[in-house]
Amino acid sequence: MSQSYPPDQSLDPEHWDTFRAQAHAALDHALDNLQQVRERPVWQVVPEAVKQELAAFTFDEPAGTAQTLADVERLILPYATGNIHPRFFGWVQGSGTPGGVLATALAASMNSNVGGRDHGAVYVERTVVDWARRVFGLPEGAGGMLLSGTSMATLVALGAARTVKAGFDVREDGLRTGPELVVYTSTAAHMSVEKACELLGLGRRSLVRIPVDDHDRMDVRALDLQIAADLAAGRQPFCVVATAGTVDAGAFDDLQAISAVCHAHQLWLHVDGAFGAWLRIVPEQAHQVAGIELADSLAFDFHKWLHVPYDAGCVLVRKRAHLEQTFAAPVSYLARGARGLAGANPWFCDLGPELSRGFRALSVWFTLREHGSRRLGEKVLENCRQAQYLAAHAPSQPHLRVMAPVASSVVCLRFMPEGLSDDVLDALNADIVADLQEHGWAAPSTTRRHDHVVIRVNITNHRTRLEDLDALLHFITASGTARLATLHSGA
Amino acid sequence: MSQSYPPDQSLDPEHWDTFRAQAHAALDHALDNLQQVRERPVWQVVPEAVKQELAAFTFDEPAGTAQTLADVERLILPYATGNIHPRFFGWVQGSGTPGGVLATALAASMNSNVGGRDHGAVYVERTVVDWARRVFGLPEGAGGMLLSGTSMATLVALGAARTVKAGFDVREDGLRTGPELVVYTSTAAHMSVEKACELLGLGRRSLVRIPVDDHDRMDVRALDLQIAADLAAGRQPFCVVATAGTVDAGAFDDLQAISAVCHAHQLWLHVDGAFGAWLRIVPEQAHQVAGIELADSLAFDFHKWLHVPYDAGCVLVRKRAHLEQTFAAPVSYLARGARGLAGANPWFCDLGPELSRGFRALSVWFTLREHGSRRLGEKVLENCRQAQYLAAHAPSQPHLRVMAPVASSVVCLRFMPEGLSDDVLDALNADIVADLQEHGWAAPSTTRRHDHVVIRVNITNHRTRLEDLDALLHFITASGTARLATLHSGA
Repeated sequence: MSQSYPPDQSLDPEHWDTFRAQAHAALDHALDNLQQVRERPVWQVVPEAVKQELAAFTFDEPAGTAQTLADVERLILPYATGNIHPRFFGWVQGSGTPGGVLATALAASMNSNVGGRDHGAVYVERTVVDWARRVFGLPEGAGGMLLSGTSMATLVALGAARTVKAGFDVREDGLRTGPELVVYTSTAAHMSVEKACELLGLGRRSLVRIPVDDHDRMDVRALDLQIAADLAAGRQPFCVVATAGTVDAGAFDDLQAISAVCHAHQLWLHVDGAFGAWLRIVPEQAHQVAGIELADSLAFDFHKWLHVPYDAGCVLVRKRAHLEQTFAAPVSYLARGARGLAGANPWFCDLGPELSRGFRALSVWFTLREHGSRRLGEKVLENCRQAQYLAAHAPSQPHLRVMAPVASSVVCLRFMPEGLSDDVLDALNADIVADLQEHGWAAPSTTRRHDHVVIRVNITNHRTRLEDLDALLHFITASGTARLATLHSGA
Repeated sequence: MSQSYPPDQSLDPEHWDTFRAQAHAALDHALDNLQQVRERPVWQVVPEAVKQELAAFTFDEPAGTAQTLADVERLILPYATGNIHPRFFGWVQGSGTPGGVLATALAASMNSNVGGRDHGAVYVERTVVDWARRVFGLPEGAGGMLLSGTSMATLVALGAARTVKAGFDVREDGLRTGPELVVYTSTAAHMSVEKACELLGLGRRSLVRIPVDDHDRMDVRALDLQIAADLAAGRQPFCVVATAGTVDAGAFDDLQAISAVCHAHQLWLHVDGAFGAWLRIVPEQAHQVAGIELADSLAFDFHKWLHVPYDAGCVLVRKRAHLEQTFAAPVSYLARGARGLAGANPWFCDLGPELSRGFRALSVWFTLREHGSRRLGEKVLENCRQAQYLAAHAPSQPHLRVMAPVASSVVCLRFMPEGLSDDVLDALNADIVADLQEHGWAAPSTTRRHDHVVIRVNITNHRTRLEDLDALLHFITASGTARLATLHSGA
């Protein structure tokens, strides 16, 4: 062989025994972090020096495994978001599990690209998707795939709805020459619906927001009237996005009633069930998602209430063929074979926009297998009860009020001493939340209810105990009282 | 506390010591698979019994960690795609690294959602994106994010191009009332460009395919003429997608010439550099991507030629503000704070369609830090030289011809004994590829060149040695000769 070729040397370790020792130490470090999470602050700010050190890496020369691991342990691992902590209540995030750590490592060792081809990861993903199909009561012939989360799943689902309901060849002709397509969702729905309409080229103006009742549920009569009005005006309604678990109040649209309206007008029913869909596996709560089995498509996350590590969302479509109709694109370099590696038609790239796709299905599979759906459902129920507990106990704290009905995991609180303006109260509540976070005590987030800033407590956390909620109330009161004293002394 | 609340019990292990022992054994199993990969078949078919067992899981009851790991080791790990093997040459897939296994495990232990908020993962992702920005010569103010791969990155980039170049408010109004927008790419470009145009609502008819020369490079003069013709016809050209590394021949469009055309007509230049962009870090090869620094946007993968575990693609945009203009959507439940967890504006969800986003940046960071870009570039160069070696040695095998110029990592071969029809040769070459895969000897894939099936050998594999290419040639000849004997005896 010619001298112009360098000696063969892969990126694998030169000394495997040394590498293994480093790997085991790293695993122990990761597990230590999980085992001791309750003893650590929920969150801590990333110091400026750390940010600067991170920004300064040039990556030209190899640092080797030991130095790289040391860097990770010093500069990165201490600064997690906090959602693995029992007192993390911000936004809607799952807590992960130690088993999920193993599942991701095992998946990375296989390094599967699940965009297509015939290999084990494909069958694992089909298994978990089909499990979800059965859980949500969709018929055989339904199908779907894992995606990064509900935002992507809703994009894919609305893409399929557009293909099926537009009445013209959207893939070939685009939207320019077509009719005025209309999508409906409630004023309490998540912004991902709007972002999907924008990216699909429908525009925000295609999305009509239907008002909600006092419990944040879509006014179904108003929906029906609006559809009729749009039809009369020559527009072409094609899709309704219902919400199972709204972001601000954890509320549930009446899926059965909305499905009836969709059926009457032959519209596609998409359900955004990011976290709320999982009430389906809780016998005591499943009534809140009754009718979810009537959906034409469904978007939800495994990384929220089922605690699969980030990221793992899912789209299900009543007829898998509708996804293929929207996304399959035969090309010679991805030709399918009757045998060999190119088998297992259809490929997942036929069902969505991604050709490269990691093996997140293993984390889902591992979590379901390790803990079982009954146990995972019990944890969902426990969180719902914890939310009720928090809402029941909050009013016994000075100045603290519950600002929205509690339907599932979300409790909106507001610290409201008398004699302060709305603006001052808004700033006060935002400060309380930031105080709690910066002290590392607890991490709720904020939102607005009726244009007032509130402390938003979401409990989708398998590590949370009632004592953590007692502590949260204590911290809110302590921070609010201290802030109030400063306000008064400054006045 | 009321009896109606069940006792607190998380999903964490009851016995951490037991769990740790299981975790370390699982890690060793994963590392064993990597260390011994050369001794195993490249690929093996998933047996029907395994598929059936996988499909039959109901997941109702907990199996526990030990049983779950045993299931994974028996039913899943043996059936990897094969791209970790030194003789995997199919499609364009990276090989992964043992360090990547550690990085994903550490990331899962943090369980970060990198859609937003102020925490370490955000700064790690900013670091690797900014490293890529500097590597590709984009100015400060450029920005981007990690995505599952180039398909998603191209979708996001064309979304930004549409926002900036449409001349009307696409996000608000959609495409229905706008002008006829036109995108250009070559006939050798990847189908992900077409899929992006479809999903964006532009339609396939918006995508004009420009012919290529004998080396699969876009005919830039034809591009210029087509743009002029479309302008004259009242259409609105807005974007050209150039390719750095075509899928069938690994060829490179002349980015400088195309950039000049874009500049003259004020069009957006997007570069699909899925694997080929990395020639930029190879001094001997960087001339092939000269002009990449002129792109308005750039899509590429870390999981291909840089061997970061799946999935890890990236979009870069010359002005980060253009991504924000396309995707940012202020809502109260994602309000940004001056301090606390809600800081670190802008969030990554402002730059793309995802709100849930895993911490794939750690795998990228880890790979860059552990191996360094110089070493990673050397491996890229080695693969290019291996492709040249293969193309130089193939013709010495009986009946074997090289069917396309070799520009980087891809070699197209065809086994062509005389006296057989094109159809018979097509079937023969497809059978040879499937034979090699099913024997577990080597895994090239197929494509078509000038409508003939060819054996497509792509070398983006840090474990491949020259002896593996000698073996590949031997296997092709052995399989081809055996098939030929069967053909003749049957005739």
